Order: sequence, then structure tokens, then C-alpha cells
Amino acid sequence: MNKSITEFPTRLASVAAGIEVLLKQLLADTALEGEIFRPTRLVAAMRHAALDGGKRLRPFLLVETASVFGAPRAGALMAGGALELVHCYSLVHDDLPAMDNDDLRRGRPTVHKAFDEATAILVGDALLTLAFDAMARPQVHPDPAVRVELVLGLARASGLGGMAGGQMLDLAAEGRFDDAPPKLGLAEVEELQAMKTGALLRFGCLAGAILGGAKPAERDALDRFGAIIGEAFQIADDLLDVEGDPATVGKATGKDAGAHKATAVGILGVAKAKEKLFGLIGEAETALAPFGSAGALLKAAARFVAERRA
Amino acid sequence: MNKSITEFPTRLASVAAGIEVLLKQLLADTALEGEIFRPTRLVAAMRHAALDGGKRLRPFLLVETASVFGAPRAGALMAGGALELVHCYSLVHDDLPAMDNDDLRRGRPTVHKAFDEATAILVGDALLTLAFDAMARPQVHPDPAVRVELVLGLARASGLGGMAGGQMLDLAAEGRFDDAPPKLGLAEVEELQAMKTGALLRFGCLAGAILGGAKPAERDALDRFGAIIGEAFQIADDLLDVEGDPATVGKATGKDAGAHKATAVGILGVAKAKEKLFGLIGEAETALAPFGSAGALLKAAARFVAERRA
Repeated sequence: MNKSITEFPTRLASVAAGIEVLLKQLLADTALEGEIFRPTRLVAAMRHAALDGGKRLRPFLLVETASVFGAPRAGALMAGGALELVHCYSLVHDDLPAMDNDDLRRGRPTVHKAFDEATAILVGDALLTLAFDAMARPQVHPDPAVRVELVLGLARASGLGGMAGGQMLDLAAEGRFDDAPPKLGLAEVEELQAMKTGALLRFGCLAGAILGGAKPAERDALDRFGAIIGEAFQIADDLLDVEGDPATVGKATGKDAGAHKATAVGILGVAKAKEKLFGLIGEAETALAPFGSAGALLKAAARFVAERRA
Repeated sequence: MNKSITEFPTRLASVAAGIEVLLKQLLADTALEGEIFRPTRLVAAMRHAALDGGKRLRPFLLVETASVFGAPRAGALMAGGALELVHCYSLVHDDLPAMDNDDLRRGRPTVHKAFDEATAILVGDALLTLAFDAMARPQVHPDPAVRVELVLGLARASGLGGMAGGQMLDLAAEGRFDDAPPKLGLAEVEELQAMKTGALLRFGCLAGAILGGAKPAERDALDRFGAIIGEAFQIADDLLDVEGDPATVGKATGKDAGAHKATAVGILGVAKAKEKLFGLIGEAETALAPFGSAGALLKAAARFVAERRA
């Protein structure tokens, strides 16, 4: 068996542990330079949203992509923490009653259930703001030109032309703003999901390449890999919604059909979606070919994303 | 009459016009590098929130502080646009039903009234993200070290230890999380307001000093000036809520007392609050003394902030 495949769970857990320590530090009680005071309730609710949660897949992709180039791990972890904060904020706002109205997240009450709706709105806002704070810090990389490039890339992936825009398209696809849900074709659904879910995963890979000082061709290859991972992740997620067990997944399943969510699985059917998913693993491996054995762990990550059960 | 006093309205209007042009460009339909697609509904709702609104006082402070040092206007305008986007996002989220539940803003329906609540949540998120995008752009300053310092400062002023934290304290002061509103003393109310309203105004002045390459002592003086302006602005705002005409102010007045808002005017009474306000104008002039005639316009700004009727 390939060493990277057996190594993968350990490496994933190691990044997750590093991110947990880092997010705890970022969410300390003490105000930093340029801050006045950190209110106890807001800090507690931000911790509820960000700590002890998830696989930390986005930071993993960032850290392990940077590691292909031998970039220092501490900087990659800080950049990964920034990316994870954006992901966490998006979950908090996505769960709000006016959005997807979810009570459960990672097996725990969502922030507006554990606290209240106003607090959840502010938690999302403050996590998003803290993400840019973290990405701009000298710990990420000694060269401010690299940090400012990462800040700009994170903003583009997360904003109106990326994740936030994708959430808008997703609500529109449910028929929120029309009498009936519009009929989206496969290409439109794929664009929606490339924005809503794909953009952050993809940026994780690109950010690792930027941190590692990748050459343009290497950067393009990792950007392509990131786009493929993003697509595979979403198809696997939609398959889990159809076939998964809520206890394992940690949130309600079977919701997409009821909410008229636009998914590739809904359009293609389960069998063809699985076929597409395995095709994507092949494409991911092709994209990583130029990196030889240095890309083995990222290949294992592609397989994990496609085959995960939770 | 002092030339700066007569010049002030023209200069304020000129910055506002520059910001309007810039925000229109930032909110164009076309996706930029690193973006996928800008959804029409989201762009329209973001324009509703950000365009044709307000005095643009925060960008004005930034641009005119930078101008004390002869910094190029285009860069200061872009940094001011970033700061204004943070202000605009905070208004959209503050107006939400779960927050202050306001139907009217600048004489127009709030975003969740003109569109819907989910759209308003995403508009706030996307405006905040776009703010960091704008601040990281090369147009702000050729040196990435300066841009990354501005990104970090903007995050600190806006986040859990600044504006967002202040909004949390403000909700707590209303008694949202207890059976009865807690009794805040003057010092606590001032800290709350230094975070909620003061932090962005203050950062406008500090950012101008950073852009202008101010020496440490100059920077400290402008940071102090910014803190004073922030405090004066909030007292004037609270006085407008007590004494103002809704038609002129552009939003409902007399709301603070009903909502048990924590205000210095509520604690001191109108007469003492006015006395304090005029004391602050004196302090602002003292802080600006080292800049001689170059600080005259900022002195006029302090007077404007204290005496405004809308």
C-alpha cells in the first residue's frame, strides 16, 4: 500500500490539532493592539462556532500544498486558520433562520440556537473579520507582498464573486425569489457549487502554492487540482445527503430534495454522479503528476474527499 | 472667517463624490480575477446598501488626514472606500429584524425591506469581504507593507475588539440577555461607544496617517484626534435622537429611550452632554496643534461633527 495513503489520516489529524490550538489562541479573551475590549459573550459564541469542529479540510489542503514546496508549517497553519475562520463564519450565517434554518451543526446546537440570532449574526461578522486579521499577520509569511496577495485571494474566493455569491445563487435556485424554483442545467449547478463550496477549497490549494513560492505552471496545476477537489467534495456531500446516516454525518440528511436544492446528484442521479466522482479522482491525480512523489499526500486527500462517509 | 471653515462643505462633497464613483466601480457587474461570477441580485442589493448614501465622513477623515502629509489622493480614496464598505455592511446587519429591526435608512427602505432578510445577510457579508479586497489592492499604496498594515488595522477596528464587539455590548446594554437592562456607568457607556461607533472613525484618521507615512508622534496625535472625533460623533448622534427631526435625520428618532439604549446623553442629560461635546471640540483642536495650518480642515471637521443637524 502507498505510504501516503496510510499516512493520510495521521497528517489530517495533525493539521486539525494544529488548527485547534491556533484558533484557541486567536479567540483568546485578551484584546490585541488596535482592539479595545473583547466582550465575553461574543468570544464564547465565536468559540462555540469555531472550536472543536470539523475535519479542517481547507487548512489541511493549504498546509499540505505549502509543504510540497517545503514552506514553513507555522505560516501555513496561520493562513489555514484564516481560511477556516471564513468557513466557520459561513456555516453560522448559513444556519440562520432566514437562510437554511438549521438547528444542528456537527452534532451540536447551531450558534443561534445555543445563543440567539443577533449574537449569531455578530459571530459570523467577527469571524470573517478575524480571518483577514489572521491572514495579514507577519506569522503567515515574512514578505508583506505574499500576505497581501493572500488577503486579496481570500477576499475574491469568499465574496460576491465566490462563496457569498454562490449562497445567493443557491437561495435563488430554491425558488425563494420566484413563484417556482428555476430549472437549472448541469452547467449552472456546477457554477453555483464552484462558488458556494468550491471556491474556498480551491483557494486552500492556491494559497499553499502562493506561500510556497510556486512557479506559474505549478501554481496553475494546483489551482486546477483545487477546482477538481472542490467539485468532488460537493458531489460527495450531495451523495451523503441522499445516502448518509444523520448520526455519522452530524447534521440532518435528506434535506436537499425537500428544499429543492440544486445539486448535480439531483440532475445526474446517484449512479452517474458516482461515476463522475471517480472520474474526478483521476483528473486530480493527473493534475498532481508534475509533483511526483511530493504530490502523493494530496492524491490521498482527493480519494478521501470522494469516499468520505461523514 | 477661516478659509478651512468655508472650504469644508466643498471638500466634504468632493470626497463623497469620489467615493461614489469608486464604490460604483467596485460594485460593477463584471467578475474580477479570482472571482467566478457576480450574481445580479446580490450586486443590486449591495448597490442599494452602499451607493447614494450618507456623508461619507469616514472616508473624508481618511482622505483629509492623508492629505496633511501630501499622500496621493487616489490611494486615500481607495482606502476610504474600503472603510466606507465596512460602515455600510454594519448598517445593513444592524438594521436586520434580529438586531435593531429598522425599516428606514437614509430615507430609503433598509436592505431586508427592499429585498429580503437572507439577501441582506449576504449583502453585509459580501460588503465586508469587498472592503478587505479593496484595502489590499495596489491602488491603495505601492508598498505592500503599508497595505497589509492597513488591512490589519481595519480588521482590528471592525472586529470582536472593535465595532462588532461594540454592537454586542450595545445589545447586552438593552437587556437582551438578562431580565432587565444592566445599569452601565458613564465609563462603560463610553467604552461601548468607542467600540461601536468610535473605532471606525478613529481608524479613518490613523489610516490617513499610515498612508501619509506619518512619524510616530504625528501618528499618535492623529490617533488621539480620531478618538475624540469618534466620541463627539456619538454624542451628537444621541443628541439628534433626542432633539432631531426624522425628516432631516433620514431615520426614526426618539428610539434610544424606548429601546433602553445606553447613551452618554441618557446618563448626563442634554445640557451636560452639550457641554462635554464642546469640550471635545477644544480637545480636537489641541490634538491638531502640531500640524499648524495643515490641520485647519480637520479642525473644521471636528466642528462639523459636533454641530451637525442630520
